[in-house]
Amino acid sequence: MKSVKVGVLGATGAVGQRFLSLLDRHPFFRTSALVASERSAGKTYGEATNWVLEEPMPESLRTQEVVSDTFDLDCDVLFSAVPSKTAEKLERDFAKRGYKVFTNASDNRMKEDVPLVITEINPDHLALVETQASYKEGGFVVANGNCTGIVMTLSLKPLLDAFGIKSVQATSMQAVSGAGYPGVASLDIFDNVIPFIGGEEEKMESEPLKQLGSLKAGKVQFANFPISATCTRVPVTEGHTISVFAKLGKDAAPGDVVRVVNDFTAEAQKLKLPTAPEHPTVAFTEDRRPQPKKDRWLGKGMTVSVGRIRKDGTNGIKYVCHGSNTVRGAAGQSLENAEYMTVKEMLG
Amino acid sequence: MKSVKVGVLGATGAVGQRFLSLLDRHPFFRTSALVASERSAGKTYGEATNWVLEEPMPESLRTQEVVSDTFDLDCDVLFSAVPSKTAEKLERDFAKRGYKVFTNASDNRMKEDVPLVITEINPDHLALVETQASYKEGGFVVANGNCTGIVMTLSLKPLLDAFGIKSVQATSMQAVSGAGYPGVASLDIFDNVIPFIGGEEEKMESEPLKQLGSLKAGKVQFANFPISATCTRVPVTEGHTISVFAKLGKDAAPGDVVRVVNDFTAEAQKLKLPTAPEHPTVAFTEDRRPQPKKDRWLGKGMTVSVGRIRKDGTNGIKYVCHGSNTVRGAAGQSLENAEYMTVKEMLG
Amino acid sequence: MKSVKVGVLGATGAVGQRFLSLLDRHPFFRTSALVASERSAGKTYGEATNWVLEEPMPESLRTQEVVSDTFDLDCDVLFSAVPSKTAEKLERDFAKRGYKVFTNASDNRMKEDVPLVITEINPDHLALVETQASYKEGGFVVANGNCTGIVMTLSLKPLLDAFGIKSVQATSMQAVSGAGYPGVASLDIFDNVIPFIGGEEEKMESEPLKQLGSLKAGKVQFANFPISATCTRVPVTEGHTISVFAKLGKDAAPGDVVRVVNDFTAEAQKLKLPTAPEHPTVAFTEDRRPQPKKDRWLGKGMTVSVGRIRKDGTNGIKYVCHGSNTVRGAAGQSLENAEYMTVKEMLG
Amino acid sequence: MKSVKVGVLGATGAVGQRFLSLLDRHPFFRTSALVASERSAGKTYGEATNWVLEEPMPESLRTQEVVSDTFDLDCDVLFSAVPSKTAEKLERDFAKRGYKVFTNASDNRMKEDVPLVITEINPDHLALVETQASYKEGGFVVANGNCTGIVMTLSLKPLLDAFGIKSVQATSMQAVSGAGYPGVASLDIFDNVIPFIGGEEEKMESEPLKQLGSLKAGKVQFANFPISATCTRVPVTEGHTISVFAKLGKDAAPGDVVRVVNDFTAEAQKLKLPTAPEHPTVAFTEDRRPQPKKDRWLGKGMTVSVGRIRKDGTNGIKYVCHGSNTVRGAAGQSLENAEYMTVKEMLG
Repeated sequence: MKSVKVGVLGATGAVGQRFLSLLDRHPFFRTSALVASERSAGKTYGEATNWVLEEPMPESLRTQEVVSDTFDLDCDVLFSAVPSKTAEKLERDFAKRGYKVFTNASDNRMKEDVPLVITEINPDHLALVETQASYKEGGFVVANGNCTGIVMTLSLKPLLDAFGIKSVQATSMQAVSGAGYPGVASLDIFDNVIPFIGGEEEKMESEPLKQLGSLKAGKVQFANFPISATCTRVPVTEGHTISVFAKLGKDAAPGDVVRVVNDFTAEAQKLKLPTAPEHPTVAFTEDRRPQPKKDRWLGKGMTVSVGRIRKDGTNGIKYVCHGSNTVRGAAGQSLENAEYMTVKEMLG
Repeated sequence: MKSVKVGVLGATGAVGQRFLSLLDRHPFFRTSALVASERSAGKTYGEATNWVLEEPMPESLRTQEVVSDTFDLDCDVLFSAVPSKTAEKLERDFAKRGYKVFTNASDNRMKEDVPLVITEINPDHLALVETQASYKEGGFVVANGNCTGIVMTLSLKPLLDAFGIKSVQATSMQAVSGAGYPGVASLDIFDNVIPFIGGEEEKMESEPLKQLGSLKAGKVQFANFPISATCTRVPVTEGHTISVFAKLGKDAAPGDVVRVVNDFTAEAQKLKLPTAPEHPTVAFTEDRRPQPKKDRWLGKGMTVSVGRIRKDGTNGIKYVCHGSNTVRGAAGQSLENAEYMTVKEMLG
Repeated sequence: MKSVKVGVLGATGAVGQRFLSLLDRHPFFRTSALVASERSAGKTYGEATNWVLEEPMPESLRTQEVVSDTFDLDCDVLFSAVPSKTAEKLERDFAKRGYKVFTNASDNRMKEDVPLVITEINPDHLALVETQASYKEGGFVVANGNCTGIVMTLSLKPLLDAFGIKSVQATSMQAVSGAGYPGVASLDIFDNVIPFIGGEEEKMESEPLKQLGSLKAGKVQFANFPISATCTRVPVTEGHTISVFAKLGKDAAPGDVVRVVNDFTAEAQKLKLPTAPEHPTVAFTEDRRPQPKKDRWLGKGMTVSVGRIRKDGTNGIKYVCHGSNTVRGAAGQSLENAEYMTVKEMLG
Repeated sequence: MKSVKVGVLGATGAVGQRFLSLLDRHPFFRTSALVASERSAGKTYGEATNWVLEEPMPESLRTQEVVSDTFDLDCDVLFSAVPSKTAEKLERDFAKRGYKVFTNASDNRMKEDVPLVITEINPDHLALVETQASYKEGGFVVANGNCTGIVMTLSLKPLLDAFGIKSVQATSMQAVSGAGYPGVASLDIFDNVIPFIGGEEEKMESEPLKQLGSLKAGKVQFANFPISATCTRVPVTEGHTISVFAKLGKDAAPGDVVRVVNDFTAEAQKLKLPTAPEHPTVAFTEDRRPQPKKDRWLGKGMTVSVGRIRKDGTNGIKYVCHGSNTVRGAAGQSLENAEYMTVKEMLG
């Protein structure tokens, strides 16, 4: 595999840092462009960045120069960690200039021509990029989805395949890292639960249906069941926990659910993509799992764990699932999607 | 109102301390018996007790003598804070000797002859005590219910009355004080969510149906809808938060729910029982409420707050409710029940 | 006591909110002016304010109008909660127009003509206001001091009086509320200690010496011993804890220290100022005190507690002290100073 | 290096788990004996153990059998994680039967014939084992020291060598993992600082002087300066932070201290012992370091970090140091000591 040059848009922010940390020592992606705002341009990354991750800043980045928004970057692939609102146009502009943009921002996710992809679930949707106006210039935008949605969707996929799904009711208990940095004030969340996260429930109720949908005649047909969500913030640093009640298409015993969750695997695993975990989903049978402290970094943050699987009335099942919001729920998912397109030679 | 002498069983433990703190300066209950294990008997309460509440130990208790299990106490009313397993027999034995026992323990709650009472909801069930064998000696056992269940049941009652309830799915986020002292190890719960609390879901799925049931011919007919619960522990010291999805008997707009929750009141309020809050339930229309930090002590810990009220499909409603687990969910509820029976002259 | 109209500068911020909460139902101060930035002017206080305190916003404030910086306020006394940097000039400008400004900001604290007063320690310094240029217009500025410094200074005063002090070495463990709102990011302080607070050590090493100094010929002669401080931030919401090693002027047994700390009282107590606690300082002999959770609100947040008093070599003593940073260490101290000047008829 | 069979005494407890986690995949130690109480004997390690570490239980342990106290173990080296009080006799008994015991317990630390060793500081003290009665049977006891003491002592060693030390005053902010499992109750430490840890200050004031002492004629001559400590518990899971004020033998600028801390290295580093970090101590010049969240796992938990280095009056220096209490401050130190004796062929 020859190396591929990549850049990061919004390189100095918290999500940008996560991208760069995951890209450090990547087997075939090589970081050659750090893009940030005018304010940072011309500085070294070490000077420009208030590094907030627990793991140290990769040494190689420290002296690399930060550049400002520009369309003349030394790379083909861009990971976008820019904030919502500015992302929509900016990403499309880069695409028009031939860049392949893998974005973590929400702006373009639900656009008809943008694939919203979890590599293990709907990699065939990536073909949607060919419908984008920029595709004739060689550029496109691929999105991955909201952090809470991705975690839940991975838990739902094996159930959908095996039993069908009629409806989902979910309550999330989300980590503060999901709000970026500085994000949630300590005075607000210490010893507290905040029962609202702006815009989150709308995303959780719509994005999974696109990810679980099927591509037909160049369009995504959404999965056909209602999701109802209540999203809360809890005093946890990393890892979103979701309590799910799902009505299935047919009866399934908890043991059946354990089995399909543990057996779930996909092309990403066969291809041994660097970011793909050995198991995209695992099921616990112990009562006290999953929990953020022990399970957030399973599969280097790419494995979603499912536990407390119990019957819930006729054809119903209830469980708790958990996954890293910054890796599987954000930067890691973008990386895995880009790895897939690289390995499948879809980058042109 | 002339004063009534009361005692506390299990006076030195965390729940016993909460009882005593609430009894301090009570308008008509006067604490005259502190009952604990052999180990503490003969000591002063100050010596025998590792006081764990944030508010200081009432001065008057410090030098009061602790007595051991005995049937010769200087009081008629007993509040029981003894642990499960030992409670069942012990409480019945005291009842047989003529004591009126108001218990926070779980052992006797679901017994056919024991009223499980939330004063604002089913005070008529208190008549069940007459069916207890001990009643002819003047003694009986009254229970109040599990902390999480009481909070949720208070939120359900106005809905049941106004719209009917067809089913409930609930996810709790429970405070560590619910586990007593020392309870949850800090290493287990810091930066974590534990998705299991032993025995809790069974209680949440059964007790509310007894509390919301009706007394007919000396028997409680349980409310007739299924409750499905997932109970979790979060890093919060006090106050249980519950995310509820309820299917109603008929369609209700969020505004209708706000109204019935705010309007809910009961005989306890008319009687101005010392522990009864002005409002047993209140509804928030702000997005970020209820939250433990701001709402746990509403109504001195006796008010349950309800927020995030939204539609959930046909005839469905979803919301988040919150209440103090140590006051409304435990000792405060026992007190209010005893106040009711005192004021209504049901103590004989 | 006839009522005195007061205003709050910076009324919508976290410190302003604390002032207003303490002023609610004050026996003789009546809040008649809420001053904030242009952005808030004209709105009601309820609209303009993101209320962050745990206790609810006083109802009377909700509909009161917020005004912008103006020199035509319906009050004589102003409590200043404006940020550093802007405070210096703004407060002096209000003073020139005849307002009596009691400030919690740091800008003017160490100015030669500004009294830096802890009511129980150096109320005689208040005479310094007469040396201010604005005094002939009837206006002046009185400061109270840094939150950590005030707590430590109150613990040092009884020692200084009884034994003399030769040197102090202190390590603070400060609460996040000391950084205002939004203040410390949860991602920074969860499960962490941050060993630095900008500007804090300089204040702790200088302000106490002014507070403990003596007024001679219209000038403050600073107390004459070195203070060396290391300031850290810990995951605590309210209440600063300080570990102190003090070399005394003469030998003192721990029991002697307990006694002088418990016996300390001042004119503020004799005058029964509304905000003055019965005991400005209390000593614990139990090992596990003081601690934020149990002791932050002693004396309604105005009492400093001292514990773990032990010998530290020749003439040395070591101890841990604790106090509320938002009440005694900030707004409460300003109030008490203003109460003193009101009762002593020093407001002109 | 041929492999050495080792066992763990108290294998199922929290410290035992840490030993086993560190021993997993060790280059030359092979775990062949898991010793625990009668209650666990005969069970598999997976059955007998409530695993509390965040990293998962090494798979190889899961089915290994736990044995009870016995003197017929399949190993020569024993790591002792047994509780204080029982350790003293038990460890000596094992030594008498020829086992080489490396203990983390406190009982034998200050015994005249027991070396108290931090590998980088006083490996020559290991010769003390020859003075133990059991040595003629080939067995001995080596201790490492209290967690807080080890961290501080490593920070003091470069200062002592370069400048001499006249006195030390230290305030610790200790993590809850230092108290074992279940250890500190969440209700006690959430949002709190507890200013007392039983027995800790005595250890901090004595053990470092033995570790920094010199072995002369078969006896340890203690270092000759006073240490005064105040120990507190803070809401941090792992990593002890210590604020140190040290009077030095001669004047040293902060830059000098930075240099000697960064330059400090020892024979353990030359020998490239598996557990020895590249740098036993590192100095930060940034203001906000060290902090538990970023620095606890430096050098895989074996590096002590030092920051906030400032002058403190004449010949004085003040700083904040930090290190892992469970690795460098406990099991890791025992391992490193055993590795040293193995590599130096001191095991006989």
